[in-house]
Parts: sequence; structure tokens; C-alpha cells
Amino acid sequence: MSARVLLPWIDIDVPEGLSAAYYDGVDAPPADLGDVEFYVLPYDRGPEPPKLIKDLPSLRVVQSLSAGVETLVPLLPEGVRLTNGRGLHDLSVAEHALALVHAAQRDLPRWFAQQTRGEWVREHTRSLADSRVLLVGYGSIGQAVERQLVAAEAVVTRVASRPRPDKDVHGVAELPTLLPKADIVVLVLPDTPATRGLIGPGELAALPDDALVINVGRGTAIDTEALLAETRSGRLRAGLDVVDPEPLPADHPLWTVPGVVITPHIAGGSASFYPRAKKLAAEQLRRYVEGEELLNLVVQ
Amino acid sequence: MSARVLLPWIDIDVPEGLSAAYYDGVDAPPADLGDVEFYVLPYDRGPEPPKLIKDLPSLRVVQSLSAGVETLVPLLPEGVRLTNGRGLHDLSVAEHALALVHAAQRDLPRWFAQQTRGEWVREHTRSLADSRVLLVGYGSIGQAVERQLVAAEAVVTRVASRPRPDKDVHGVAELPTLLPKADIVVLVLPDTPATRGLIGPGELAALPDDALVINVGRGTAIDTEALLAETRSGRLRAGLDVVDPEPLPADHPLWTVPGVVITPHIAGGSASFYPRAKKLAAEQLRRYVEGEELLNLVVQ
Repeated sequence: MSARVLLPWIDIDVPEGLSAAYYDGVDAPPADLGDVEFYVLPYDRGPEPPKLIKDLPSLRVVQSLSAGVETLVPLLPEGVRLTNGRGLHDLSVAEHALALVHAAQRDLPRWFAQQTRGEWVREHTRSLADSRVLLVGYGSIGQAVERQLVAAEAVVTRVASRPRPDKDVHGVAELPTLLPKADIVVLVLPDTPATRGLIGPGELAALPDDALVINVGRGTAIDTEALLAETRSGRLRAGLDVVDPEPLPADHPLWTVPGVVITPHIAGGSASFYPRAKKLAAEQLRRYVEGEELLNLVVQ
Repeated sequence: MSARVLLPWIDIDVPEGLSAAYYDGVDAPPADLGDVEFYVLPYDRGPEPPKLIKDLPSLRVVQSLSAGVETLVPLLPEGVRLTNGRGLHDLSVAEHALALVHAAQRDLPRWFAQQTRGEWVREHTRSLADSRVLLVGYGSIGQAVERQLVAAEAVVTRVASRPRPDKDVHGVAELPTLLPKADIVVLVLPDTPATRGLIGPGELAALPDDALVINVGRGTAIDTEALLAETRSGRLRAGLDVVDPEPLPADHPLWTVPGVVITPHIAGGSASFYPRAKKLAAEQLRRYVEGEELLNLVVQ
């Protein structure tokens, strides 16, 4: 008897000993999933795919392709293991942080607006090279951001929740002395009670004039009203892939502040994610069929 | 007697033994420059500053802050040395190449357009990570571009005018076999008879569908009409800081092609250039006054 697996994409390598059914999270799932033991959740398809878990009586493993799986844990039946997509999005998010930095430093919105008018008007811009960047959040995404910043010859100062002097990482408690020396702050923080509102009116006020605030972690790390005040006055600039609230309402004043660029929480899902996700899924299936320990176990 | 130097900025360190006059290339030059021996040309200020050379009877050295000095050579009186700004712009240009790559891969014009309408509509984008990049031009700028591409985990193939197999650099003669395997082509080439029209209809046709063409070298490297045809059809995309002709006329059809982003030849002059230029100027003045050999001598 061959065990069945439920997969979001048809081009995942399925090892011998398993047969596959497919559910992309958009069309209806196949009928007759009573023998599915391993469910790789469709990525970023809203609340429907996780609801299917309760309809899979033979289920043994749920593989999420996201890093955050808090909302899945309560849906897991007793004895079903949960693995996550830790690391799959790191490069995609890191790359988007760089895109936002370049967009702001190189005045890209201005040139694209000129382009629509056929206007060749030149002006020198800021640059990333030689800028002092305060990188807040030093997990795997933060480290990927750092490698790209260093290659661009920016001067990076590392900050994490807890100081790690052996790795030259400062703690967030040192922000008051670090912020005044930053040309650019890049936030790569998860949403936790400790990170909520970490960058408030006082922290923003501590930044030098014309500093750039980049956020690719979670919107809650920044006090939106305070950021609005400091960017509206023209004192600070911002590049945001995440905001609070999200989605940002159509009539929110942040949309139209000059010096603020906003993308709609798309940092994690770019093309480089998919091959990595499919490779992880294939490796997990191989481990499952060969009885090896699964990667990225969150609940076992 | 103290020798006089003519400088574009007041915050250049002037060594003892020299006195300075200032000319920014915008306001009129000071009168009475008969004793100026060393002239640091204002950067990117058009044709007026070089014309001043003929009015400086004591002149011994002209320091340009550009890399290309072809137009200056004919203006030099007998016995006047010329030094250039080789290297000062490398990082600025390289960084702008990355900005254009990110803008195109991450659909930044789309998000900025959505932003003007207060629209939170999400879609996954292409990425730079894992992309196959053909880097054409492997001087100091090309190498700076490469470091940033590699940090973003792109897969880089190096091309230069002449192959250097010891450094894994292919020659331009190999382009026909290399282009079909490129997701992104980055051109970092000077304007020479050999580079003019290097990327013509055949080279563009050899690129796979949806490939991205980036140019931060000189516009003449690409056949504009051929690029227009391939981008208008939607088959290729482009990110251009340089074009041919330049400035691009207001009614040129390239301005409005979807999938083409254009900046008005601003790659080289961003903020990181200025401290580097001032440092070079100060070092050259020191060498001049101490009788040491000057850096970046082009004509001696």
C-alpha cells in the first residue's frame, strides 16, 4: 500500500513509496482524501487551506511553507506533527529590504514619475555606499540583509533583542545611543510583545535629520502615528513593506507622504521562494518515507 | 611664495604651502587667477569649467573628477599634466545598477503607482536571488556590481572584451552562447568603437523570454530601436540609466514602454562620490606640494 501526500504544486519530486494528490488552495480540494498522511499547505492562500486539516483522518504531518505557524497550532489534531518553512523566505525578504533602501536613496519614485512625463531632468542622489546602517534584528534574514549591505560598502551596526558582544551585536537597550548615529535603520523583527512599538516617538526623534527607516519585519514594530508625524514634516524618510494597520486603508495619510515608499507586504513571496520551497517539500517527503527525522519540526 | 590651487569645494583639505581659490562651475570664476598652478575641475557642470583652462597661464596640473577625459585632452596646453577621477564613481554606478535590477525584479513602478491611489493589492514578484546574471564589463565597476550580486545570491557569469580564462572571464565573442542562459544582462561598458551596438537585434533575440537588460555604462552599447521592438512586444524588460540618444527626447517611444524603467544618467554622481572625490583631491594636493608622483595620471 502506497501512502498518499497532498501537495500544492505538481513539480515537487515525490519519492517512490508515496503517491500524490494536489490542492493549490485556489480551486476546490480533491474529494476522497481519507488516506492523506502528509499535507504540504498551499502558500499564502488565506484561511481555507488550514481548515482542510480537520478533514484528513489519516494525517500524520503538516508542512507549512511559512515561518510563522502560530495560527496553525490550535488546528492540529493530537499526534499530528507540524513543520514550518523557516529560512525559505530569508533571501526574498532580505532582497526586498535592499530594494526599498535603493528606491529611497536613489529617488526612484521621482525618476519613474519623470518617466511618465518624458522628462530628462538630472540631479544627484543620496547613496547607500558609506551610509551608516543600523540593522535591528539579527536572525537569518538580518544576516542576509547584512551581507548585501556590506557588499554595497555600507557601514553596518548590528542590533538584536539581546546583546551578543562576542558577535559584535548590540542589544535593543542601546538604541538610544545608536539611533543618533544612523543614516538608515533597517527593521527585521517578528511581532512579539517585546518588539511592538519598539520604534516610537522617542526613537524616531533620536534619528538624525533625513534618516531613512526601512521595515520588512512586522508593522507593529513602529508607532505609525509617530512615523507619520516625522515623515510628514519632511524630517525623516521611510520605506515600508509592512505597516500597522495592514492592509493600510485607502484613505490613510501615510500613502501620500513625500519621502515614504510603501509596498503591500510582498517581501517574502518572490520567485526565489518557490524553488526553495519545492526542494524543502521533496526533502521532507524523502525523510518521511525513509523514516528519518523531519526538518523544521515545530510540533511533534 | 605660496602656490595657488583652484578647487570646486571649500571643504577639501589644503596642505600647508598652498593657498586656495574656489570655483564651483555654477557662479562665475574668481578674477585674477594668473597664479593658479593646480585646477580641480568642478564635477558634472557642463562645458564651461574646462574652458577656463586657457585662462590659467601658470597652470601645471588639471585634476578631473570624471573617469572619461577624452574631451579635455585637446584643451591642455603643452606641459600641463592631466589626472582623472578613475574609481571615484565605481561604487555609485554599481549601486545604481543594483537599484535598477531591484526596481525591475520587484515591480517597484507598480507599487509606487498603487501607492498614489492608496491601493493595497498584493502579488508575488520576480527576484534577484537565484537569477542567472550575465555581467558584461569586468573592470572595477563590474567587479563592484558582482560583489553585490553575489551577496544577493545571484549566479554571475563574467564577460569582458577579452577572455581571461584564469579569472573565469569570458570574451564578448562568446555572447551568442551565453545570452540564451541569462535571466538578467548587466552592461557596464565604456563607449568605444568595439562596444558600440554590441547588443543589437541578434543579441536581444538570443535572450530568453522575460529577460531583463540593465545598462549603466554607455547608451551606445545597445541598439535602441532593437531594444524598443523587444520591450514593446513585452518579450524583454529593461532598466536603463544611459540611452542612445541622450537626453532621450520627450516624445521618444521608449519612455512609455511597460517593463522599461529609465533614470536620466545619474548613476555616477550620488552622495558617496563626494567624500571620495574630496579625499582624492586632498591627496593629490599633498603629493603636488611634496613633489611626489600624482595618482591617476592620464597626460604627463
